[in-house]
Amino acid sequence: MSGGEIGIYGLGRFGSFWAERLARRATVKAFSRRSRAAPAGVELVSEERLLECPVLILCVAISAMEQVVGRIRDRLPAGVTVMDTCSVKGYPTRLMDRTLPAGARILGTHPMFGPDSGRETIAGLPMVLCPVRIEPAPLARWERFFAELELNVVVMEPDAHDREAAFTQGVTHYVGRVLAEMRLRESTIGPLGFQRLLSIVEQTCNDPWQLFADLQRFNPHTMEMRAGLEAAFRGVSARLDDVRDDP
Amino acid sequence: MSGGEIGIYGLGRFGSFWAERLARRATVKAFSRRSRAAPAGVELVSEERLLECPVLILCVAISAMEQVVGRIRDRLPAGVTVMDTCSVKGYPTRLMDRTLPAGARILGTHPMFGPDSGRETIAGLPMVLCPVRIEPAPLARWERFFAELELNVVVMEPDAHDREAAFTQGVTHYVGRVLAEMRLRESTIGPLGFQRLLSIVEQTCNDPWQLFADLQRFNPHTMEMRAGLEAAFRGVSARLDDVRDDP
Repeated sequence: MSGGEIGIYGLGRFGSFWAERLARRATVKAFSRRSRAAPAGVELVSEERLLECPVLILCVAISAMEQVVGRIRDRLPAGVTVMDTCSVKGYPTRLMDRTLPAGARILGTHPMFGPDSGRETIAGLPMVLCPVRIEPAPLARWERFFAELELNVVVMEPDAHDREAAFTQGVTHYVGRVLAEMRLRESTIGPLGFQRLLSIVEQTCNDPWQLFADLQRFNPHTMEMRAGLEAAFRGVSARLDDVRDDP
Repeated sequence: MSGGEIGIYGLGRFGSFWAERLARRATVKAFSRRSRAAPAGVELVSEERLLECPVLILCVAISAMEQVVGRIRDRLPAGVTVMDTCSVKGYPTRLMDRTLPAGARILGTHPMFGPDSGRETIAGLPMVLCPVRIEPAPLARWERFFAELELNVVVMEPDAHDREAAFTQGVTHYVGRVLAEMRLRESTIGPLGFQRLLSIVEQTCNDPWQLFADLQRFNPHTMEMRAGLEAAFRGVSARLDDVRDDP
């Protein structure tokens, strides 16, 4: 496995989940600024010790990336590989590219799953890789590594990812938040589609609001998605009201 | 089975599906004003012959109910049982109650499934019954009959049904139509929640727009649901834009 241990920086909801999954295939150490329980198979270490790992995976909020990348940039070992795990890819890959030292390999990643969607299995779920500064051979090794976790590995340009994410994950989370705001309740007569709707609400709203807000805020295609959603809402509404005015 | 054959009036998308399912447990005849293929196990008959059946299930659009009920009211056999299958229950049960002859039994029904949601099985799906004019013994027989189809039989007041339907089925179809208007596309990186969203779009939009519009139009609780959805949409939007204005 790419020559050694993986260091997970940040043990929030996603970081803990990802650390535990990775620990089934690799030696994983982790550091968190807050005191956290160690995920199964993962050794908690100091920040200093973590920054000795040859591979670092940053599991921090998008809005914390600038601060964290700035904090570690001068303390990385030669030849380190740094990955982020943000749900948008343009902003953090540009940030890492301009901030991290010339010798660092940089691979943007977006593991498109979490403790809810991946509860039973992560097999078949999408793992997006955005190579920033990495040679073909190590990139191929990472592709293989994630494929061995049975993930659906997809290599993309950061902006192409962000556009597609806005109109898939972004719109799903947006709809989930709107429906949560309506406080829909379980019902004995809810049809199958309604059960699916509720499961979307449950899944998206298990994540903190901050993650949702970051996802929308740092993705430049969000405004287009929101405008499209609003126009569609108005379109359906107008078409219904037209019918309503019929005799 | 309640003493004889069942007559299905109307062989649209739902009527054909329902006729075919019922024919697995009863003798089913059907009439359609358009020429239709006979569903498996179902005999196509004239309107006159259909109106000889001791049990009639109306599978027509809500907006066609007034015309159809008026057309058949004076041609029904003594002791007939008439059921509707509309997705709202207040309007059609009041209509049948005031229009059908005194000797007719009336049972409002809302089979909460269709050719899409019930494609693999209807087992466990909700079947709402709204007794209008029916004695306890025949009502109990119908409850048993539908329960033997493995349906989840729920007896409710029409208005209670309509309120709950607006905030379950109604909101699901509304969201499905809005998302269809956005023309979302399949994506290799769509997370699980997005697949669920697409399946809601597919399922709701397989039904004709007219069914959707009727469902919203004839349900008195729709405006409240739409107002709630719109307020929730604005609420999420405002909260996001507040964040956006942060430093």
